[in-house]
Amino acid sequence: MINWYQLAHDKEKTMIQIRRHLHQYPELSFEESHTHDYIVNQLEQLSCEIRRPVGKNGIVATFKGQGDGPTVALRADFDALPITELNDKPYRSKNEGCMHACGHDGHTAILLGVAEVINEHLAYLNGNVVLIFQYGEEIVPGGAQQMIDDGCLEGVDRVYGNHLWSGYPTGIIYSRPSAMMASPDEFTVKITGKGGHGAKPHETIDPIVILAEFILSAQKIVSRTVDPVKQAVVTFGMIQAGSSDSVIPDSAICKGTVRTFDAEIQNHIMAKLDKLLQGLAVANDIEYKLDYERGYVPVHNNPQAYEIVKEAADELNLRFTKADMMMVGEDFSAYQRVRPGAFFLTGCGNPKKGTDHPHHSPYFDIDEAAMKYAASEFLKILELEEVLNSERL
Amino acid sequence: MINWYQLAHDKEKTMIQIRRHLHQYPELSFEESHTHDYIVNQLEQLSCEIRRPVGKNGIVATFKGQGDGPTVALRADFDALPITELNDKPYRSKNEGCMHACGHDGHTAILLGVAEVINEHLAYLNGNVVLIFQYGEEIVPGGAQQMIDDGCLEGVDRVYGNHLWSGYPTGIIYSRPSAMMASPDEFTVKITGKGGHGAKPHETIDPIVILAEFILSAQKIVSRTVDPVKQAVVTFGMIQAGSSDSVIPDSAICKGTVRTFDAEIQNHIMAKLDKLLQGLAVANDIEYKLDYERGYVPVHNNPQAYEIVKEAADELNLRFTKADMMMVGEDFSAYQRVRPGAFFLTGCGNPKKGTDHPHHSPYFDIDEAAMKYAASEFLKILELEEVLNSERL
Amino acid sequence: MINWYQLAHDKEKTMIQIRRHLHQYPELSFEESHTHDYIVNQLEQLSCEIRRPVGKNGIVATFKGQGDGPTVALRADFDALPITELNDKPYRSKNEGCMHACGHDGHTAILLGVAEVINEHLAYLNGNVVLIFQYGEEIVPGGAQQMIDDGCLEGVDRVYGNHLWSGYPTGIIYSRPSAMMASPDEFTVKITGKGGHGAKPHETIDPIVILAEFILSAQKIVSRTVDPVKQAVVTFGMIQAGSSDSVIPDSAICKGTVRTFDAEIQNHIMAKLDKLLQGLAVANDIEYKLDYERGYVPVHNNPQAYEIVKEAADELNLRFTKADMMMVGEDFSAYQRVRPGAFFLTGCGNPKKGTDHPHHSPYFDIDEAAMKYAASEFLKILELEEVLNSERL
Amino acid sequence: MINWYQLAHDKEKTMIQIRRHLHQYPELSFEESHTHDYIVNQLEQLSCEIRRPVGKNGIVATFKGQGDGPTVALRADFDALPITELNDKPYRSKNEGCMHACGHDGHTAILLGVAEVINEHLAYLNGNVVLIFQYGEEIVPGGAQQMIDDGCLEGVDRVYGNHLWSGYPTGIIYSRPSAMMASPDEFTVKITGKGGHGAKPHETIDPIVILAEFILSAQKIVSRTVDPVKQAVVTFGMIQAGSSDSVIPDSAICKGTVRTFDAEIQNHIMAKLDKLLQGLAVANDIEYKLDYERGYVPVHNNPQAYEIVKEAADELNLRFTKADMMMVGEDFSAYQRVRPGAFFLTGCGNPKKGTDHPHHSPYFDIDEAAMKYAASEFLKILELEEVLNSERL
Repeated sequence: MINWYQLAHDKEKTMIQIRRHLHQYPELSFEESHTHDYIVNQLEQLSCEIRRPVGKNGIVATFKGQGDGPTVALRADFDALPITELNDKPYRSKNEGCMHACGHDGHTAILLGVAEVINEHLAYLNGNVVLIFQYGEEIVPGGAQQMIDDGCLEGVDRVYGNHLWSGYPTGIIYSRPSAMMASPDEFTVKITGKGGHGAKPHETIDPIVILAEFILSAQKIVSRTVDPVKQAVVTFGMIQAGSSDSVIPDSAICKGTVRTFDAEIQNHIMAKLDKLLQGLAVANDIEYKLDYERGYVPVHNNPQAYEIVKEAADELNLRFTKADMMMVGEDFSAYQRVRPGAFFLTGCGNPKKGTDHPHHSPYFDIDEAAMKYAASEFLKILELEEVLNSERL
Repeated sequence: MINWYQLAHDKEKTMIQIRRHLHQYPELSFEESHTHDYIVNQLEQLSCEIRRPVGKNGIVATFKGQGDGPTVALRADFDALPITELNDKPYRSKNEGCMHACGHDGHTAILLGVAEVINEHLAYLNGNVVLIFQYGEEIVPGGAQQMIDDGCLEGVDRVYGNHLWSGYPTGIIYSRPSAMMASPDEFTVKITGKGGHGAKPHETIDPIVILAEFILSAQKIVSRTVDPVKQAVVTFGMIQAGSSDSVIPDSAICKGTVRTFDAEIQNHIMAKLDKLLQGLAVANDIEYKLDYERGYVPVHNNPQAYEIVKEAADELNLRFTKADMMMVGEDFSAYQRVRPGAFFLTGCGNPKKGTDHPHHSPYFDIDEAAMKYAASEFLKILELEEVLNSERL
Repeated sequence: MINWYQLAHDKEKTMIQIRRHLHQYPELSFEESHTHDYIVNQLEQLSCEIRRPVGKNGIVATFKGQGDGPTVALRADFDALPITELNDKPYRSKNEGCMHACGHDGHTAILLGVAEVINEHLAYLNGNVVLIFQYGEEIVPGGAQQMIDDGCLEGVDRVYGNHLWSGYPTGIIYSRPSAMMASPDEFTVKITGKGGHGAKPHETIDPIVILAEFILSAQKIVSRTVDPVKQAVVTFGMIQAGSSDSVIPDSAICKGTVRTFDAEIQNHIMAKLDKLLQGLAVANDIEYKLDYERGYVPVHNNPQAYEIVKEAADELNLRFTKADMMMVGEDFSAYQRVRPGAFFLTGCGNPKKGTDHPHHSPYFDIDEAAMKYAASEFLKILELEEVLNSERL
Repeated sequence: MINWYQLAHDKEKTMIQIRRHLHQYPELSFEESHTHDYIVNQLEQLSCEIRRPVGKNGIVATFKGQGDGPTVALRADFDALPITELNDKPYRSKNEGCMHACGHDGHTAILLGVAEVINEHLAYLNGNVVLIFQYGEEIVPGGAQQMIDDGCLEGVDRVYGNHLWSGYPTGIIYSRPSAMMASPDEFTVKITGKGGHGAKPHETIDPIVILAEFILSAQKIVSRTVDPVKQAVVTFGMIQAGSSDSVIPDSAICKGTVRTFDAEIQNHIMAKLDKLLQGLAVANDIEYKLDYERGYVPVHNNPQAYEIVKEAADELNLRFTKADMMMVGEDFSAYQRVRPGAFFLTGCGNPKKGTDHPHHSPYFDIDEAAMKYAASEFLKILELEEVLNSERL
């Protein structure tokens, strides 16, 4: 009987090599042309059908099996972030101001490792494997929807995805049935009062004090207006107004994020932010502009697909933990709206190696040892889905 | 009997010419080397003693009289502001990013006009006239104190100063006995919490919400802790924190100004800002840094000097109005701490000429017609002070 | 085979009669002497052992079976609330200012109905049934702990409890594995500033403004400092300060409740309320007093006991719904700390009968039809626990 | 030449006796029937015309002189406050819940003392003296306006009034030209949200949090929207909502006072309170009710009358101090709208005698020694007004 775990381990060197290459040449979301070519180049060594571009920069590679097994898609994303890397590793980013600070380099390396194993075991392929290499995960509207619109899920029965997670120890698999990751919305508010001399506040409409009132008033959205057994976050990440100590500016700006799992609560918060601003406008004769952009829908795992993720980990003797709900977002959810599927996290945080910095930190790095576990998890999922046979067909 | 009013009017063209030159070549506070040279050049045409530099860039010109009259100083300031002029006049600023947006060009032109009149009437000079051309009024610690430290008030009995004021109609003289202009302090606060992912506020100490609490809490300094029959302003002119909608930043910054007339209230507010921040630190485990810089002391007119300003206007048939207290500041107050004196405003706001924009606006301009009124006021003050005789000695 | 559902239904009249008697003579928590006697009187008609008082006013009735089945306790509470009933029913409260506005009259009637059925079917009794009639549920520290301390759970293997619930339709059974009901803590805060004339705020320390700051600042406890995927409520239910429009009072008072499921979060909120007040004390020179009283621990259902509740409802063809977590509290949790057990709700809200007013409303009433469903659920639970046999032993 | 100072001193015992009687039998505003009769009884011993009641409970006593001097009115008020006296003096209030805690008993005693002196010196009376004994000063709309409407100022040329003031040392006279005492308005706000269980805030509209927002937001009325060189106070003196820690009430109430000197600012604040509430209504779906009652107009002293007050004190060798503006109110202002006049304070605070408690304190008391100074000031004013002659006519 074939040992997928061992086969995944055998690809560790390859995956590390690929990951380090990608890490050195990160590209921003929707601008991943070099990364696209690199992946295609790798796939062209293998016996798979390649379709590209799918959406703007996506690639879909399909291995067709000999039996009547199902078609299962595995997805990896490959875009990077506008962050300047502060790590001092030999493979550090060579693109100033751009960094793989979220582990997508690893995701892609893992999926290419899985591709090689499958390529070497076509005789075990009962169904079909669709490898989705996705661009543009970090920025709304996300590459997933564009690839779906371009047909990447056609003929696919189920879809699985993985995220390396520095907050958890290397090699542990985390997932959760039903709601797992939140919908991450973004908003920008501009409050326009009336500027003037700081010594004559009565001749102005002070937008700074009104912005402060808005921020405090918005705290009660979560504390008072959302069911306490439901989940919601309203965070202000940026404020800006004025430049001089003595001049009251005309306007003040803030940006923030709203995180929810429940569309009703999401709609409520969006409406409530607007109502609070309406109220401040009435009270203070200000004008305001609220730009609210809905983020990805929540990651919501199909219960059976979740059970397969869990069983795969069990059979591989990997530690499995049921994840808490997470307020972060992922456009993997787009695939799940169309096909049943499950998302899992693979721990890659190792304090001894310094890979436990939070995602999006300029010091972020992954414990590369985690990649083989994720790859074996993918292969085992394919086996449990009866796409791969445990014996030669 | 000599008509100082007429003599001042005769210098109108000269003053306009000088003012326009200065307006085209504004220089920032403490960097007024060209302006310094220009003034010296003008003064060198006259029969006065010139001492320079006094302090960094100041000039003191003395006309010595033949009688035993007192020594009276007149002061004009000549620095400009870091503002890009948006006026489209032929004499607009040629120094990008620098502008005479507060009328100091006019002040200097007026005093040079006065100098010419005196120069032509030395036979009427009973006492001594000290003309103080001051640099660096706009920025703490101000040029006045430096010039005083360098002896500009030695031998001086009284000191008078003038400010052109666009908020009042051209030609009206405004002054006020005792407290007239406030002490303008500046402060900067940095609140340091703990940044993190916007979706995980509980792992952070959100400095934006705490800054909002500080700003709102500070409103009660004026509304609750200052005697309502006294004057005080606490204004926040700038706030800044974070850059992304989804990332809670480590820290937040604000800048502001405190305006008071009463040292006890000034001390109280400075202490209270610190106490509010101490309280927020205790409540939220933040750290903070409060930099508080005291501004000029209040402009406080000597009652007799004020009466002379008023009488001068009356005798010149200029309209005189008792000014309200003003929350703006002026380092003319430095001279008043050492010698009795009075400060007055000369209206230069003329809507028909578009010279009613507020001071420090990029559209600020003066009604040049106001200069002759201010010059005649100065000359009349000298007469009332018995420095100038109304008849040839 | 015996039909427990039918037997429970046969007791409907009896239960209604008992319930209406109790409803007319409500007694406040820890003062339930008449109710105690009434229950004892009912039980004395039956072949059970009666122990009383257990704790202050509790009663434990035990039916001993003939087989080796387990010992299962069923609990009903019987105290009423300090509310004046506004219903105009023939059985309305005769004790002014006291009312069964939470359905405990029904709970007791149900358990006495169950007792009668058991009494009539001792030949089916394989194990032992312990009926716990509990006083003092509405007020901390609760009668449950006192009855436990007095031995009411000795020899008991499992314990079940029921609450009639007007928010749900009559007859539906609700329960939830693990955490179901929150820990309801109470707090009182007194802020002492310095009173004085409303026209001279600067001579006072205004406790009303500071209380307002405290209340707003406390909103961020939930919105910023508690993990958004966890549950927490901080509610202010009462504020009081001053009596005159023009006099600033010395002090201000508020009362509130904190609801949590997680002891760590509970401790965090208690500490955070204190820190916010400490901060306000530092900032404003106030004194404060925080009295914080921890409420009951959370109701936490044993998974197997939960499954029995669910299965009982299924077998009775009652609609069963998995309950959401509830922020209300119940001292049934005290039993669950000592013995495995489960709590369930029985819907008794019927808009047509006007029994859908919220608990603790002066218009609260139950749909008495719900009692037979709850009674049958208890009996079925006893069967599934193998305390009652489905056939004569 | 007659010595009014000495004559006033000679009446000290009489005034103390009268004052102590009044102090023991205080009556609430508009209910002063006993006090009315007592004063009438005193006046009936004298050779003056008595008209009564003037308005509801007022008395006007007129001494007609022999010359052609002017007619000057002197006013004293005589109502008391709903306060329970906590002093332990022999003459403490015998009317539980009612107290002369503002010194009106002294005012009346002084004016009766003055009446006796005049009565004994009719030969010196050149003009006419009108003594206005006024009821209902403490409560809007005030007795002054009612007495004016009933003709108390007919034929009067000028009007003077006095207030004993515990905040100042005994015997010092304080006054101020033009604006001296503020307009004291009152308001009540009721915010109606939607009550409910404290554990389910999302099903409620929490009026307590919204009231807290209103109170904080209202701080910026003074701090941001009123000219800092003008005077304004917005004080909340009372808040009340809810009674239980766990129940969110339907509504919350607050009361407060607004103090201003300037009708424009008064109107602005009244409108701004309403706008802030409108804004909160829009933001939170609450309803609100704002009852705003304008208080007395400001006390505004005629400059010449002020000079007479000052000169009187000087000639009597009493210490005179120019008062600061005061945010308290007085319906003496009603007289000043109709006739020129001046109001002055006579210090009666003596720490050694414990008479320095604030007005309206249950420990308030006056230093009775102050009465003779106030009486002599009144007499001297009459002399300076040429109502009384310094020599026998």
